[in-house]
Amino acid sequence: MPIPKLIRGHLVYNRDATRLISRRGGYIYTEDGIIKKVLSEAEGMQLAEKGVQLEDFGDKILLPGLVDLHVHAPQYSFRGIGMDLELLDWLTTYTFPEESRYGDPDYAEKAYTLFADGLRNGPTTRACVFATTHVPATLRLMELLEERGMGAYVGKVSMDRDCPDAIRETVGGGLAAVRDWLAARQGGCLVKPILTPRFIPTCSGELLDGLGRLQREYHLPVQSHLSENPAEVALVKRLCPEAETYGHAYEKHSLFGGANCPTVMAHCIYSEPKEVDLMAENGVFVAHCPQSNANLASGIAPVRAYLNRGIPVGLGTDVAGGHSLSMFRAVTDAIQVSKLRWRLVDQSLSPLSFPEALWLATAGGGAFFGNVGRLEEGYACDLLVLDDSDLPAPRTFTAEERLERLFYLGDDRNVFAKYVAGNRVK
Amino acid sequence: MPIPKLIRGHLVYNRDATRLISRRGGYIYTEDGIIKKVLSEAEGMQLAEKGVQLEDFGDKILLPGLVDLHVHAPQYSFRGIGMDLELLDWLTTYTFPEESRYGDPDYAEKAYTLFADGLRNGPTTRACVFATTHVPATLRLMELLEERGMGAYVGKVSMDRDCPDAIRETVGGGLAAVRDWLAARQGGCLVKPILTPRFIPTCSGELLDGLGRLQREYHLPVQSHLSENPAEVALVKRLCPEAETYGHAYEKHSLFGGANCPTVMAHCIYSEPKEVDLMAENGVFVAHCPQSNANLASGIAPVRAYLNRGIPVGLGTDVAGGHSLSMFRAVTDAIQVSKLRWRLVDQSLSPLSFPEALWLATAGGGAFFGNVGRLEEGYACDLLVLDDSDLPAPRTFTAEERLERLFYLGDDRNVFAKYVAGNRVK
Repeated sequence: MPIPKLIRGHLVYNRDATRLISRRGGYIYTEDGIIKKVLSEAEGMQLAEKGVQLEDFGDKILLPGLVDLHVHAPQYSFRGIGMDLELLDWLTTYTFPEESRYGDPDYAEKAYTLFADGLRNGPTTRACVFATTHVPATLRLMELLEERGMGAYVGKVSMDRDCPDAIRETVGGGLAAVRDWLAARQGGCLVKPILTPRFIPTCSGELLDGLGRLQREYHLPVQSHLSENPAEVALVKRLCPEAETYGHAYEKHSLFGGANCPTVMAHCIYSEPKEVDLMAENGVFVAHCPQSNANLASGIAPVRAYLNRGIPVGLGTDVAGGHSLSMFRAVTDAIQVSKLRWRLVDQSLSPLSFPEALWLATAGGGAFFGNVGRLEEGYACDLLVLDDSDLPAPRTFTAEERLERLFYLGDDRNVFAKYVAGNRVK
Repeated sequence: MPIPKLIRGHLVYNRDATRLISRRGGYIYTEDGIIKKVLSEAEGMQLAEKGVQLEDFGDKILLPGLVDLHVHAPQYSFRGIGMDLELLDWLTTYTFPEESRYGDPDYAEKAYTLFADGLRNGPTTRACVFATTHVPATLRLMELLEERGMGAYVGKVSMDRDCPDAIRETVGGGLAAVRDWLAARQGGCLVKPILTPRFIPTCSGELLDGLGRLQREYHLPVQSHLSENPAEVALVKRLCPEAETYGHAYEKHSLFGGANCPTVMAHCIYSEPKEVDLMAENGVFVAHCPQSNANLASGIAPVRAYLNRGIPVGLGTDVAGGHSLSMFRAVTDAIQVSKLRWRLVDQSLSPLSFPEALWLATAGGGAFFGNVGRLEEGYACDLLVLDDSDLPAPRTFTAEERLERLFYLGDDRNVFAKYVAGNRVK
């Protein structure tokens, strides 16, 4: 029987996509992993007095958990080095050789344990994760995340061309591997599989066709990459001359959104108007990865334009294109690059504010997981409890200022506690 | 009598402006705060066996200390908040009200202690620091830095227009205050005064004339701001219609470099060709502040162009335009924005590599302090000892990779020890 619980702290969260709200001594009333109600001090005290279990964090800041909408688990091992190349060369020089190591179960165990611990210790509560092509390592990664109570979609990567032998599949072998993976995974409702064709350059039409069939058979969501780098976009034009845009090259295999195929595409920096139309029409999620897009000299995505079009947007760390696994950084990086884009590229698209970027990192990415990312009745009880006591100042700040400051200055040490679906995971 | 000393570790540092060199078990032989020699394992052991005092840091990384060429001590108190405005509005809305508080000695004591502790705990060994217009608070700041063994130029700010009463000086009062400050400061050879006209918009020609005279009388170096923001540059054009460029508006008061007036100017994003010519001619240092330039939507300075012209360049955090006091971040931010500038603005100016950005943060900024910022005979013994053991990975890395990784992923916790002029300060 689900035990109801009260969690108390200084609530600071989005009233809507552009404004914050602060409630000192607010209560989250939760049952069975779901938020039943957000209560005032008086309402919460009343329930607590009636004997409902209370976890009281005093004046620590309480907000929805952060959602990392795009991260590569096997690349965590080499984050922070080798960022002197653009995307395609970076993949062949650093990334594919590293991912080839995950055929070795010992290496995968060591590396994925570090990744899972890193994710658990930081402010992320849910993540959309790329693994590698290897089935055993991907299954182990899912277990490691589950053991730590994290929420995640995890994808065994599919690819059958233009990559080293160790991680290149045949069409038949690759599709069979997806079936093996789906059959072998142990249930668990927080860590779920997601179809993961790496991107058009490494996936033949035949493979994508097969993945499209698997998508319809298993009703799986889809994650991939889209329009990250000019040379990549040009390559896709050469590989798929018949596709109107890069996005259409996924769509012809039924792997690009729509009601029955929730899809998230990372980057979307160079999406042309017809691609953007298709994203809007099909409700394709954009995983905006500002740090990676700077490190690999990719550019800056026009996030404001996507928001104006009603396209769903979340934020991703994209480790190891991004060097940091911290979603605090993803939020502040998103703000910074939006300012640079406004200045250098297009002054008709205003920069993101802190409340807006926080919204993207919570409700924005959370929507890909269903009712996730908001402090509202019926949403998953994913919470962060943040402690800013190690960030002293000579004067006091408002709660909204404390939160902003913590995102800019803080790190894993400031994540005092974390709940995913009502369970305390840190 | 100066006691010679050996400091041993895994040396990783710039062979020159573009390449790193690594020496496992290298020794720094130092005497009287100066590097006498960089020794190999065999040479070092020989001296150690002869009884020269040894501090052995094993396989920890040893490199030159980092130089923050532009930071505002009184703004440390509100770093990480209030970055939703451009420069001129940001100054009047957030910065000037905060700086006005430093007339209160208690507030200054509290705030400057936090700043000095922050600087001591991080990877910075030398800094060019702006204080406020207040003489007592500025003197106290200098003491606090001196007590912690930091190397610094500290400037009492001068300004006499377009700012709140609490920090606006008269011409006579402002010049007298500089004299009072210089007379009152207690000797100390690591923390030294620097003339600090805030910038043209808040300094009348009369005040600048007086400061120019003081510069020649006291032989002080100069720091200020230059061409940071388009609205600021336009304002200077209106205020000084007779000056050919913003830089010339300093130069006519003899406050813009030259053999007898070492000068560092922060930002230099919008310097027009004639201003750049003058900077090159007069050897004016550029303090490049990438994080601040993103936060205040200022833009991205063409650092590569300055390097090509032989203009001396260092890096600055520019707290609180920059939110982080960490020079690790200044290095990685400089690389990131150089990539974005290459992509979005000018592909004829190649991005900075990690060794290049490290060079700017050590030898580049260090040159403003004299023989500082290199592991070479005759240079100040400013050293960092970095510990990357809390950044585990499933495989090993080269020493150069360990260093790069540490700059991208690390923080104050990774600064195991720090030497300024041969004294251990952390």
